[in-house]
Amino acid sequence: MRSLIDILDLSPSELDELMDTAVEIERHPEKFRAACAGKKIATLFFEPSTRTRMSFEAAMFELGGNVLSMSEASSSTAKGESVADTAKVISCYADIIAIRHPKEGAALVAAKNARVPVINAGDGGHCHPTQTLADLLTIRREKGRFEFLTVGLCGDLKYGRTVHSLIGALSRFEGIRFVLISPRELSLPEYVKTEVIEKNGLSFSEVSSLEEALPELDLLYMTRIQRERFEAPAEYERLKDSYILTPEKLALAREDCCVLHPLPRVNEISVAVDNDPRACYFKQVQNGKLMRMALILKLLKEAEKPERENSRGEFLLEGKRCKNPRCILHTEQELPALLKKTAGGVCRCIWCESAVE
Amino acid sequence: MRSLIDILDLSPSELDELMDTAVEIERHPEKFRAACAGKKIATLFFEPSTRTRMSFEAAMFELGGNVLSMSEASSSTAKGESVADTAKVISCYADIIAIRHPKEGAALVAAKNARVPVINAGDGGHCHPTQTLADLLTIRREKGRFEFLTVGLCGDLKYGRTVHSLIGALSRFEGIRFVLISPRELSLPEYVKTEVIEKNGLSFSEVSSLEEALPELDLLYMTRIQRERFEAPAEYERLKDSYILTPEKLALAREDCCVLHPLPRVNEISVAVDNDPRACYFKQVQNGKLMRMALILKLLKEAEKPERENSRGEFLLEGKRCKNPRCILHTEQELPALLKKTAGGVCRCIWCESAVE
Amino acid sequence: MRSLIDILDLSPSELDELMDTAVEIERHPEKFRAACAGKKIATLFFEPSTRTRMSFEAAMFELGGNVLSMSEASSSTAKGESVADTAKVISCYADIIAIRHPKEGAALVAAKNARVPVINAGDGGHCHPTQTLADLLTIRREKGRFEFLTVGLCGDLKYGRTVHSLIGALSRFEGIRFVLISPRELSLPEYVKTEVIEKNGLSFSEVSSLEEALPELDLLYMTRIQRERFEAPAEYERLKDSYILTPEKLALAREDCCVLHPLPRVNEISVAVDNDPRACYFKQVQNGKLMRMALILKLLKEAEKPERENSRGEFLLEGKRCKNPRCILHTEQELPALLKKTAGGVCRCIWCESAVE
Repeated sequence: MRSLIDILDLSPSELDELMDTAVEIERHPEKFRAACAGKKIATLFFEPSTRTRMSFEAAMFELGGNVLSMSEASSSTAKGESVADTAKVISCYADIIAIRHPKEGAALVAAKNARVPVINAGDGGHCHPTQTLADLLTIRREKGRFEFLTVGLCGDLKYGRTVHSLIGALSRFEGIRFVLISPRELSLPEYVKTEVIEKNGLSFSEVSSLEEALPELDLLYMTRIQRERFEAPAEYERLKDSYILTPEKLALAREDCCVLHPLPRVNEISVAVDNDPRACYFKQVQNGKLMRMALILKLLKEAEKPERENSRGEFLLEGKRCKNPRCILHTEQELPALLKKTAGGVCRCIWCESAVE
Repeated sequence: MRSLIDILDLSPSELDELMDTAVEIERHPEKFRAACAGKKIATLFFEPSTRTRMSFEAAMFELGGNVLSMSEASSSTAKGESVADTAKVISCYADIIAIRHPKEGAALVAAKNARVPVINAGDGGHCHPTQTLADLLTIRREKGRFEFLTVGLCGDLKYGRTVHSLIGALSRFEGIRFVLISPRELSLPEYVKTEVIEKNGLSFSEVSSLEEALPELDLLYMTRIQRERFEAPAEYERLKDSYILTPEKLALAREDCCVLHPLPRVNEISVAVDNDPRACYFKQVQNGKLMRMALILKLLKEAEKPERENSRGEFLLEGKRCKNPRCILHTEQELPALLKKTAGGVCRCIWCESAVE
Repeated sequence: MRSLIDILDLSPSELDELMDTAVEIERHPEKFRAACAGKKIATLFFEPSTRTRMSFEAAMFELGGNVLSMSEASSSTAKGESVADTAKVISCYADIIAIRHPKEGAALVAAKNARVPVINAGDGGHCHPTQTLADLLTIRREKGRFEFLTVGLCGDLKYGRTVHSLIGALSRFEGIRFVLISPRELSLPEYVKTEVIEKNGLSFSEVSSLEEALPELDLLYMTRIQRERFEAPAEYERLKDSYILTPEKLALAREDCCVLHPLPRVNEISVAVDNDPRACYFKQVQNGKLMRMALILKLLKEAEKPERENSRGEFLLEGKRCKNPRCILHTEQELPALLKKTAGGVCRCIWCESAVE
């Protein structure tokens, strides 16, 4: 069964196809109004995220389908059944599943057990591919291309899964230059720089000042900086304002710069920026819904085809076991500690993709 | 975009029109079964209220539309995005929004930021206009008129927003006499007496005994008295039973008296009263659904018209700022401290409408 | 109004009819796709149970109807309105109600106050009849008969309401032999043995070893053993593994044995058993949805008939009052302490059915 766990599960040509469908849906919504009649999506949110959940639900309604909705505090999950059992049970009720879960690897566990396609709507700090779909469509519509862009990434580059995912997706294009704007504490992890950016022959620079970076950017991707990420509160207080986008700072940017943000924002973009034509973060929301519609259509169509091999080349190795405390391996009933080898020869957990020594 | 924040946003002739539609819907439901086909309502309940939420959702389903549902404990709201951002985001997903929020003024903030109509389903202690729509239709159907009625209001008249709202709506009719039945601690605020009742040339009397008031009433509107409103617990204990409606007390009322209650009740009306033909509070529930259907139809229809000016004559005044701790002004990101002048010359916060000195 | 509170509310021929409909639905889903068009089910879950709730909701969607969904922590129930009022209010919004509530007797209170059919989706430890419907259809499909079966019941036989309910349903058939497999602390209550099994002329044996029982079983019904049921934690630790079904233990069972479990499981069945053809617990899930579809159809059809008498032969007896602390009698506003006499001459509370002395 074809599922979407990581944005890299989709080839560049599949991404193109999804974006074409999304634009077509916006132009001719009436053509798609009954495309999923009689079908149901289950939105299983083991961690509340109203915005993402409603995006999936609106997407399904606009395709003529129905919604089985679940949203609960993660506390009650502890006592509940395993993700694998949930996936097997919900396969009796829904034709497609969108799952958000606090544990890294949860969506892959669901996909390996469901009899219907599974969409990862966020598995802890690991992946959130449909956000990247929204980002990509916005870039294509605003910039008209994916090649030869100077892309500023600002804020928490260490933990921000949307940033890592976007870097991964853009690294497949030519002539991308990343400008990494963050405090030292929250800089991009070394393995993303080497294994993703450099391996694809792309370049990056690191700066700590948003003002400095702004003039050269085609694109600015803002994310939130959380107080709790800092060891020294004083350091947070000293830095926080430098990463807030205000009209004054935006005045330094190009006319055709495009500002993105995965939302929700707290205060890292001033409300006064919202009416600037370069502010594209609410367009991202609309694009996210359209891409989710295109994705639901694609996965339901592929689900009708004969089953295809789902292996990720996984294997067991005695004594080797993922130690990432946020990995689902440690909470899920009888889950095997499967591993995979990545292109760089590193051994990784197949569930959360953290390196295993 | 036309929204409904306060019952007074609707003119008397618009109220008439809504009530006519509601009655027509009950008579010929089949005519309306596809009226909202392909449309979606988002019910954003930042404070759980199953009854009100389901009323909106049932209303939308009976019009052939779909529902995006959100209900969460207010605790998690604290960390969430601003009401303005929520309204902008949900405008991509839904054609109309019903919002309940613990902060006074939240619905107006949503309305000023949404690209779709917003219905206030309760903003803290401020307004709850669709409850008043239910009350009004019940009065029209039970009494056949709005003029020359003796209206008893019993219970917590100090904090009860449904009571204030009903007084406002009825004050536009001729010959209404209010009988205010409450303990001294919970009597109607002075400004409602002067700025609403007296300004409209209506009369009122205040009594502390339900038995005394009952024989003269055309209408009795019951509300709940909460223990926590009393400074002295002993006072609560002494008083509470006098404001409970029992069959014995109801025996003192006229044959054609009509008992209303916004529900949920706790114990302020005995279950033994439910089967009395004068008990109309479950009819109110049905009428509430019908009025919400009529309202959704009206607002969606007006949304198709060219945008109209949304100003409430608001202005900023340096140094003047709402001090109501329950006002959304103090929690919402970068919300301007806008003011308005009311007919009486009082300066009020446009968000929560509390007086600003 | 016909409701379903207890599995015994359905006669054997009605059960047959429901199972026939369920099978017909699976064979020809297209025939039922619009059977409930324009109808709504309200799923009132005062205790979260995603699996059961979604089963009802999927059932209604597959019949072409709509869903009003409520799921909340029981903590907030405490402050809420009575179950009777909720039932009256929701009757204005929905055509049928499925209710789960932590208090024993809550579903009967709802049924006595609703103007629409009510389905008990679990009332505390009392009843959960639609689980039994799932169990029965699975038995019929897997074994081809209900007569002359050796039925093993394993785990918590003392508190397990699904076990009691299944025993009640099967006791109406001929030649059933129960093998009760449990630790002494959790053995089947005496009154079920005498009033249900023996009264129907059936036999049972009690064993404490799953291995010992397995070879003779046509059917093994597994349930969970909870640590908190044991007075001595050491006793729990000593026993827990003996009631876990593993491939090694299952090797002792017959080729045509059929393993059931009401789900969710925690770890009482090893995941390694799931792919064994004798593991039928995920089939139960599918069968549960089909039986709920058949039940919704049946109750909505009967709701069109003239009202029938709803009495359970209840009476009041001065000084006699149910003392079960989990009974809804003690929390519901002004609920009369009604009693009934069972066939055995025992006086029972009509709400929770516990014996009243």
